[in-house]
Amino acid sequence: MNSTLRRHADAIVKEAVAAVLPDEAVRRALAQHPLTGNVYLVAAGKAAWQMAQTASDCLGTLSGGVVVTKYGHVMGDIPGCVCYEAGHPVPDEHSFLATRAALDLVQSAKEGDTVLFLLSGGGSALFEQPLVPGKELADITQQLLACGADIVEMNTVRKRLSAVKGGRFAQACAPAKVFSVVLSDILGDPLDMIASGPACPDTTTCEQALEVVKKYGLQLSERAMECLRTETPKQLDNVETQITGSVSELCAAAAASCRRLGYKSVVLTDRLCCEAREAGSFLASVAKSHADTTEPLAFLAGGETVVHLTGKGKGGRNQELALAAAPGLAGMKNAAVFSVGSDGTDGPTDAAGGYADGDTCAVLTRCGLTVHQVLSANNAYPTLKAAGGLIVTGPTGTNVNDIAVALITPNKT
Amino acid sequence: MNSTLRRHADAIVKEAVAAVLPDEAVRRALAQHPLTGNVYLVAAGKAAWQMAQTASDCLGTLSGGVVVTKYGHVMGDIPGCVCYEAGHPVPDEHSFLATRAALDLVQSAKEGDTVLFLLSGGGSALFEQPLVPGKELADITQQLLACGADIVEMNTVRKRLSAVKGGRFAQACAPAKVFSVVLSDILGDPLDMIASGPACPDTTTCEQALEVVKKYGLQLSERAMECLRTETPKQLDNVETQITGSVSELCAAAAASCRRLGYKSVVLTDRLCCEAREAGSFLASVAKSHADTTEPLAFLAGGETVVHLTGKGKGGRNQELALAAAPGLAGMKNAAVFSVGSDGTDGPTDAAGGYADGDTCAVLTRCGLTVHQVLSANNAYPTLKAAGGLIVTGPTGTNVNDIAVALITPNKT
Repeated sequence: MNSTLRRHADAIVKEAVAAVLPDEAVRRALAQHPLTGNVYLVAAGKAAWQMAQTASDCLGTLSGGVVVTKYGHVMGDIPGCVCYEAGHPVPDEHSFLATRAALDLVQSAKEGDTVLFLLSGGGSALFEQPLVPGKELADITQQLLACGADIVEMNTVRKRLSAVKGGRFAQACAPAKVFSVVLSDILGDPLDMIASGPACPDTTTCEQALEVVKKYGLQLSERAMECLRTETPKQLDNVETQITGSVSELCAAAAASCRRLGYKSVVLTDRLCCEAREAGSFLASVAKSHADTTEPLAFLAGGETVVHLTGKGKGGRNQELALAAAPGLAGMKNAAVFSVGSDGTDGPTDAAGGYADGDTCAVLTRCGLTVHQVLSANNAYPTLKAAGGLIVTGPTGTNVNDIAVALITPNKT
Repeated sequence: MNSTLRRHADAIVKEAVAAVLPDEAVRRALAQHPLTGNVYLVAAGKAAWQMAQTASDCLGTLSGGVVVTKYGHVMGDIPGCVCYEAGHPVPDEHSFLATRAALDLVQSAKEGDTVLFLLSGGGSALFEQPLVPGKELADITQQLLACGADIVEMNTVRKRLSAVKGGRFAQACAPAKVFSVVLSDILGDPLDMIASGPACPDTTTCEQALEVVKKYGLQLSERAMECLRTETPKQLDNVETQITGSVSELCAAAAASCRRLGYKSVVLTDRLCCEAREAGSFLASVAKSHADTTEPLAFLAGGETVVHLTGKGKGGRNQELALAAAPGLAGMKNAAVFSVGSDGTDGPTDAAGGYADGDTCAVLTRCGLTVHQVLSANNAYPTLKAAGGLIVTGPTGTNVNDIAVALITPNKT
């Protein structure tokens, strides 16, 4: 193993993940955007508690706050805030209770005041106030799932059955301003998709919602049908949004870390969505083609690759990506490919991802294995472990998808 | 379809392929490398006739020449040269006859003279002078294939059974100099693999050859065993080599064409070898991530992707790559991905490759199809045809693998 490249990989992973931790993301957003008037805090999602805690640290006194996160995720009191734990991924009565409290809180916000809205993954279930009974909402969701409606169709209907989704939460905050800080876990940061966009103008229409009902023959109460006929806000003049932890920032932070280590860095994409192993092969091809470089180079690709299981081994998409790069790198003294999940958990393993360089294949050969065999068994973990190629960070407390990097250094001749 | 991007794609393909045509490749090599003394020409491979014809045009009088190419590939007389047609992919008596004539010819070359050796794909069968009877050579090849020997093992044995492979042709040219011009059809241009390296020092050893015999229990005559015990040249002081048509030059020419059209161009790799459709997805991700560019951008990837057949449709690897990019590009007004084979023939079709942009998916939707369905059926051809996405060049006369390009232009707002 190339110990310098391996050390660089670990350093880049550490710095990139640190940049997208919820507390760092909130600190950065607030530093760039001073708030005015009385500040009311509403935080929803899996990272809500950390985000709210940091906001409280940065801002001092709040005029009030509601925090709603998953069970077991409240780590202590936050001054001026009421913290709730609620159901995820299925909303429960605690979700509704907390969201009701948030809606009540923002009624106190006046012209010139600010609602600081901190949103992270999981917000769709945790931040919900249905306009129909919870039981009917669950039934409609079940009908949509059973008939094979796609995610766009599902959201078109469900936004209209909610008092907060589809921009309605921001509408409820008016005339106060809303500063929305979003930790994004969806590629491309589609604001209307993250928690169904409580502070984002809705682009779907009543007509589209009614078409879905007709298309699938959904059974709805008269109350629900009335909701579907009620339009969502198409424009929100009181909202500013900052997406502050996302795979784009993960890529940017990793690239900055590469540059600090002396690598000229190129972010190829923050939308990677192909098969993990093929992305690994692609990055190895890039590394190999730049083997004669006269300056250290880094090529970065962020996103969320996929794995099609053909075996029952142990591994994850990041480990597969790294291992699949090994044959292309074989024998190179000056290149490595590594990939990690920002949450620190790659597949059902205790590793965050994997690392491969020019020596990785030789380790497999000594074990009588080929990369092809190992990938067919989806068994990257033990192989990378044997090659010293596991990257272990422990759970990081954030989740903005993955980053893969190819590093190439000038060959010493 | 974006007519500007489509027009650019066709222009880039045309210019890139023109740069790696055999005649252009030879012209460029000779312009950079003046020859000295009497010049003897030996040309072998599928493009031997074109290469020799161009050399004759450039150099005028030759002291003699031997050209050996596939049946049907001699297009006329070349002054001072004897042209042979011979067996491919299996060598026949005409291969041996032509190669014998080449060996005889270079005996006339003296110190200070030059043997111009023009090599292209197919040279392994066309340029051969076995040291054992042709029948025994065929039998040994058959044994190696039957026992599952890999290509490295096969070449280690076969080089030693040949009077020209493994550097021996260049050895036979001494004391004259050899200028070897190579049109490469193998990724990474491994000179000892192209036609088994007649003018390239051999890196394999007798020991390795004898190990292969032992490993597979090959049955060899005493004459053949004696050949395996005879070492190939490990150093050749009289050879200079120029690889002048290769996928690297295809990439460079495509990048130059992109730059002429105003695109800032990045060659990601000339070693692409992953699944075609995943490379398409990767390039679409790159395009999408650069949608906000303020200057026209081109990302290029050359190589030889693979397709695993799951259906019985009509298509090729370049068409699959382009079509697989369509979902990622869907709705974008300012990006395209295209891919072509430099030989002008992609799979068993009359197209050289395919083109997709932000409108391609909509055409499929109108036909009630998804890209996933079409790729599962390996049926890219009719779909791209319907979308105006076939790139047709006709057979080009060269073969240096494929080039794929993502183009992104600034969005007009």
